[in-house]
Amino acid sequence: MNPIISKEQILAALAKVNDPELHRSLTDLGMVRKVDIKGDTVEIILAITVPNCPFKSQIESDVRAAVGALPGVKEVVIQMGSMTDEERKALMGSPEEGSAAKYNHIQNVVAVMSGKGGVGKSLVTGLLATALAQKGYRTGILDADITGPSIPMLFGMQGPVEPGPVGLRPLQSRSGLKIMSMNFLLADEDQPVIWRGPLIGKAITQLWGDVMWGDLEYLLVDLPPGTSDAALSTMQSLPVRGIVMVTTPQGLSSMIVRKAVHMAQAVGVPILGVVENMAYFICPDTGKRHLIFGTSHADEVATVAGAPILAQLPIHPDVAALCDAGQVEDVRLDEMGGLIGAFIKAAPAQKRKKND
Amino acid sequence: MNPIISKEQILAALAKVNDPELHRSLTDLGMVRKVDIKGDTVEIILAITVPNCPFKSQIESDVRAAVGALPGVKEVVIQMGSMTDEERKALMGSPEEGSAAKYNHIQNVVAVMSGKGGVGKSLVTGLLATALAQKGYRTGILDADITGPSIPMLFGMQGPVEPGPVGLRPLQSRSGLKIMSMNFLLADEDQPVIWRGPLIGKAITQLWGDVMWGDLEYLLVDLPPGTSDAALSTMQSLPVRGIVMVTTPQGLSSMIVRKAVHMAQAVGVPILGVVENMAYFICPDTGKRHLIFGTSHADEVATVAGAPILAQLPIHPDVAALCDAGQVEDVRLDEMGGLIGAFIKAAPAQKRKKND
Repeated sequence: MNPIISKEQILAALAKVNDPELHRSLTDLGMVRKVDIKGDTVEIILAITVPNCPFKSQIESDVRAAVGALPGVKEVVIQMGSMTDEERKALMGSPEEGSAAKYNHIQNVVAVMSGKGGVGKSLVTGLLATALAQKGYRTGILDADITGPSIPMLFGMQGPVEPGPVGLRPLQSRSGLKIMSMNFLLADEDQPVIWRGPLIGKAITQLWGDVMWGDLEYLLVDLPPGTSDAALSTMQSLPVRGIVMVTTPQGLSSMIVRKAVHMAQAVGVPILGVVENMAYFICPDTGKRHLIFGTSHADEVATVAGAPILAQLPIHPDVAALCDAGQVEDVRLDEMGGLIGAFIKAAPAQKRKKND
Repeated sequence: MNPIISKEQILAALAKVNDPELHRSLTDLGMVRKVDIKGDTVEIILAITVPNCPFKSQIESDVRAAVGALPGVKEVVIQMGSMTDEERKALMGSPEEGSAAKYNHIQNVVAVMSGKGGVGKSLVTGLLATALAQKGYRTGILDADITGPSIPMLFGMQGPVEPGPVGLRPLQSRSGLKIMSMNFLLADEDQPVIWRGPLIGKAITQLWGDVMWGDLEYLLVDLPPGTSDAALSTMQSLPVRGIVMVTTPQGLSSMIVRKAVHMAQAVGVPILGVVENMAYFICPDTGKRHLIFGTSHADEVATVAGAPILAQLPIHPDVAALCDAGQVEDVRLDEMGGLIGAFIKAAPAQKRKKND
């Protein structure tokens, strides 16, 4: 009996199915190992890039849909295996620096900076990212604070990370953010990273180029304090679209933040806006505002930065408690609505299409 | 008429007068340019190392006392000039790296560290130094935060610094602390220092070796956040006797501070004690304690550090205001007595002798 369909027709259908992560077709990626036609049943053996691929079932259903739609095909039987290390290397090339970057599509890279430590850069990064995800933007956080990373604790996340076919896979937070931090690569979160600057810079470019960020509307980069290696490497090696500058009311902070503003201006990266954190404390007993860290200097910073004030956030014991509990995604502050609106206005992104 | 005294006797007397800064005799330093004996009057021409020498009048009165004490001398007339650049170079050698260090005598170098930014390292440094000076210890502060220096603003000080004969002269605070910061070397305090790590490390070793610290019982080194170049260079290039570790109640801080603790242990520098800053806020209206940043984690940090808790300091709006006004030396906190007592116990120093 003549098969109802040719092998070529099936391969042509498979050539239209893309690996969701690598954006190349299964045939192109050498994943199709065998196609057998038995009457109206098609048997396909696929080898995905790595056994732990999180898109395994998506690939399977995409293949079933594509081949099942061919005329005369009643049943599609799929066997999923995975490539050997050698096969993967032959396909992708040996893992080399920045090899993941060419598979990533990131619309907006925005750095969160202050120059000064402890002003709440990581909190602002976490709040912004969570709000962006809630609005339907695919968002990631690159924690560029190699020696003092705060992001993992704010999100209650720890390593290890899994290797993907072309780089490391970022971890997913509860609200779906893709997050990568040096702390995920350490055996113990208390372990110090005692590295001199050039290694710090290299680590950041690797967290950018060797991580499978995939398709994102926003990647927020949480910078450490200072205007040295981390800030320099980020601004020089990553396509940073703009900077959110975080400050606090203390005159001391504003002086150091002004240094960061001048650095951004020196390297030519625009400042999108200024967030003042720890602006005041509302006493839960009396409802009175206490300017614990003095009166605001946000205006001065905004003037020097030539950028608007995006928000002034209060000190709130609940926020500290949620952050310590790894639940920054559950923080609700009235000021967030204004912040995220102003942020998106300053760095607009096109949302993914429905079928993306 | 025969002179009442020989030139040799006068030179012998001058050979016992030391430059207060360089600790070498005036004859040895080539400062004595001419000695004339006219009856019972001795005329001396001195050339001090630099015209702006702050010890000029002290040298003059020391010479007057030494020569005036010789038998038969009724009057001592002193003319003060200064050396030419060539003379100074011939005497001191060309200024080379670390050339000031051999004239410095510093009993205790103590680093103030935390790993985390914004926890109050500079405040703790400033409070400790002020309290040490009040107790009669000669104390200096080396601000090792090259890119985000806080010390100058806390003390209300700015550059420029003056060159001395063998290096830069630190500035003096109102309570007599010797202070040196990268910010004193910048034309404008807002100017960023956009340097990669190796330059940061070099700057710190220069603030140590090319600065005329002179005789100090304590030199406190205010470290920036992180466990990278600044901390490494300080611990490896300076004779650090111990570390004061600063933390805050946030779990986040304590995790990062534990990294700093492990770094100190890895490089073999003992931790003298732990200071918890921002431990609580006392509402001025109700007197109630608010644990704004959560409950204390100081015990955990102290356990990991194997060191005692030296103090737990509150958040106080007056402290922030004094710091912003450059008056950290006027901060009074009840907790300071306990802190300074515990600190001196952990790092005792011998006070200078009366005639020193």
